Amino acid sequence: MDRKFSHLDAHGEARMVDVGAKPAQRRRATAVSRLFCAPATIEALRAQALPKGDVLAVARIAAIQAAKMTSTLIPLCHQLPLDQVAVEFQVTADFVETRCTVSTTSRTGVEMEALTGASVAALTLYDMMKAVDKGMVIGETRVTEKVKE
Amino acid sequence: MDRKFSHLDAHGEARMVDVGAKPAQRRRATAVSRLFCAPATIEALRAQALPKGDVLAVARIAAIQAAKMTSTLIPLCHQLPLDQVAVEFQVTADFVETRCTVSTTSRTGVEMEALTGASVAALTLYDMMKAVDKGMVIGETRVTEKVKE
Amino acid sequence: MDRKFSHLDAHGEARMVDVGAKPAQRRRATAVSRLFCAPATIEALRAQALPKGDVLAVARIAAIQAAKMTSTLIPLCHQLPLDQVAVEFQVTADFVETRCTVSTTSRTGVEMEALTGASVAALTLYDMMKAVDKGMVIGETRVTEKVKE
Amino acid sequence: MDRKFSHLDAHGEARMVDVGAKPAQRRRATAVSRLFCAPATIEALRAQALPKGDVLAVARIAAIQAAKMTSTLIPLCHQLPLDQVAVEFQVTADFVETRCTVSTTSRTGVEMEALTGASVAALTLYDMMKAVDKGMVIGETRVTEKVKE
Amino acid sequence: MDRKFSHLDAHGEARMVDVGAKPAQRRRATAVSRLFCAPATIEALRAQALPKGDVLAVARIAAIQAAKMTSTLIPLCHQLPLDQVAVEFQVTADFVETRCTVSTTSRTGVEMEALTGASVAALTLYDMMKAVDKGMVIGETRVTEKVKE
Amino acid sequence: MDRKFSHLDAHGEARMVDVGAKPAQRRRATAVSRLFCAPATIEALRAQALPKGDVLAVARIAAIQAAKMTSTLIPLCHQLPLDQVAVEFQVTADFVETRCTVSTTSRTGVEMEALTGASVAALTLYDMMKAVDKGMVIGETRVTEKVKE
Repeated sequence: MDRKFSHLDAHGEARMVDVGAKPAQRRRATAVSRLFCAPATIEALRAQALPKGDVLAVARIAAIQAAKMTSTLIPLCHQLPLDQVAVEFQVTADFVETRCTVSTTSRTGVEMEALTGASVAALTLYDMMKAVDKGMVIGETRVTEKVKE
Repeated sequence: MDRKFSHLDAHGEARMVDVGAKPAQRRRATAVSRLFCAPATIEALRAQALPKGDVLAVARIAAIQAAKMTSTLIPLCHQLPLDQVAVEFQVTADFVETRCTVSTTSRTGVEMEALTGASVAALTLYDMMKAVDKGMVIGETRVTEKVKE
Repeated sequence: MDRKFSHLDAHGEARMVDVGAKPAQRRRATAVSRLFCAPATIEALRAQALPKGDVLAVARIAAIQAAKMTSTLIPLCHQLPLDQVAVEFQVTADFVETRCTVSTTSRTGVEMEALTGASVAALTLYDMMKAVDKGMVIGETRVTEKVKE
Repeated sequence: MDRKFSHLDAHGEARMVDVGAKPAQRRRATAVSRLFCAPATIEALRAQALPKGDVLAVARIAAIQAAKMTSTLIPLCHQLPLDQVAVEFQVTADFVETRCTVSTTSRTGVEMEALTGASVAALTLYDMMKAVDKGMVIGETRVTEKVKE
Repeated sequence: MDRKFSHLDAHGEARMVDVGAKPAQRRRATAVSRLFCAPATIEALRAQALPKGDVLAVARIAAIQAAKMTSTLIPLCHQLPLDQVAVEFQVTADFVETRCTVSTTSRTGVEMEALTGASVAALTLYDMMKAVDKGMVIGETRVTEKVKE
Repeated sequence: MDRKFSHLDAHGEARMVDVGAKPAQRRRATAVSRLFCAPATIEALRAQALPKGDVLAVARIAAIQAAKMTSTLIPLCHQLPLDQVAVEFQVTADFVETRCTVSTTSRTGVEMEALTGASVAALTLYDMMKAVDKGMVIGETRVTEKVKE
């Protein structure tokens, strides 16, 4: 692998990479992020919020909106029109995992959009649960799939 | 600790908590986030980008801007005027750590602003380094300090 | 009542009204907006979406976010830090009514924030239901209460 | 008509509909919104603001800007590049009607953009006229035309 | 005058200056910006747009909205709630001058808000007039007054 | 040259020009903007900030982000997906010049994006240097190249 930072020019200065010569193509990426909580927090979440509450819906909407705002947040990202954003949650005994899948038909990939969506879902869950758990940690945020179709 | 989710009403519906009765007060929070990379990536970062390049400056600005946008990203957060945002980086053999400290004089705390700033710095670093390392993971994003002064 | 438009100067030119001499004070406003649908649409909503679906949660979050963005949308509105935004829905045989209540401690009132929240909730419901009902109409968007406390 | 909500999956969870398989095509939609006022308010508007004032221009610009921001406001809307936004007003004895027409060359339609533009124009007019009329109501916001060309 | 850059720390790294210890105080600033055009452009503007057209209203609204967005545009600016924004134009034989006055009751001054408003008004005028004049230049953008009251 | 304002209709009312019939095409524009400072300010900049400081990086990122936000700032601009934004600085004895080059594959040109990027870079430099120089002036902001490829 060539260890060259594509966003830096020969002087180390930041730039948006020119994507004009790349073809618009269907692309998809999935990222996950985990919010690690105390077991009692997960139990409270299961008891109070999951049967009918809005907690996961709020985090899902936050993720979708954040994925669409990626180029506003990450300075060197291109503005990409997203074909689809889908967000799923898995609640285990130790963490809540967000899985965010993003599709586009564009000149560059959408792993940053998937990562941004998953991260903001985790932050939103943190915000809603912070009154009951002061020790939460967001971890293992990573890309799990990146494809061209 | 009372395990009650303050953002949910009796029906499990989301709400912004009313902060009107709380006094405006000086508050500060610090959060960190780590981007774990391959050692060769860290070496490339040290060789190409750290001596004079823009990499850390880009991530710093992204963090400051994201901290100011927290209430746009996290649905139930209040809009808070920030007195200060400061961002520091530590580059180790395995990870780049972002430390984001936020101060305000407001009716509620700023840990979400600090977490959002640190997370977006990590995402920005990921974006600039993803061409050279496909296996990076963002982890251990957490609040390290929260005080009223 | 003096029929003078406060946002126009003597030349008919738009301006933001100067609120600097007004005291910061607790203020609250409530607005409602109704989305009129076919009875079959309401039935489908009750059957598919209300028992456990995200429909009302999505509209609630959209309303909260829009209330916070009012000064970005309405050119002559001031930027106001909101203490609280609460959103409730009532589903009748003919319409879905959104009730949005906004509180602030500021130099001017929040009826525009309440109206914006209620309107964007109605638009969001329209968006989610438009595949099943082409004849919906948003109506009777109005302020129902405006108080200083 | 199949009464299935396209934005909800089998679990009632919100999603952005995948538009990747649809062709980019010229599409246009028109929506209207009416702001009902007291007759004396309409007279004041005609006397003070219409001959030369900025009132309608401010509402027109607000509508254009809001149409471009639709995907930021309505969570499940796609980001669409608009080819054109046009806004016209009709002032009658009882109401001010905004007519907003939006065109795009995209994979999905623009009725939400037209509705958002018309609604925000009505809200902006409300804001500028609220000092002289406390009883205004926004009503009859609806799509009047939706075509593929 | 001490030639120390307040936005750089001892390492030359950017930071938002801490304004928490400064008192909230009424502050005002005025900035101007000039758009230099060909005389025939000014004549066309006077003939077609000034008697009744929207040109100056569009630029005025753009300036007000930009002043409110200053902290989104200028990375190290604080978010300030503006009490008032007023925008005036002077059309001479050679240029259109925008004068933007901004007031706040905050911990820091608003000259960047006034400069941003004036600059965006000039850019908006440029946009509307560029079809008829390819040689326009924006110049002499500067602060003309900055006061504490 | 036909001196007709394309953004005004027959009634002098503002509109977004319809670009739907124009082909998507590779387009590029460059704009410059100069911040005129006292010689002592330039010396301080060279001594404190240029060897390793973040000053130019902050302005570069602000320019890139502003270029992407042009349609939010300039009311009648279309939303354009940018292929690339590049920003260079030249520091002379009297001024700092920003040169901003923007590329797109779209139905209309990007000179407003280049001008907006260059202007916001100049404003950002002004903000960081205003503590040491009260007499700075932004001037000679203009398009230097506009091409279809």
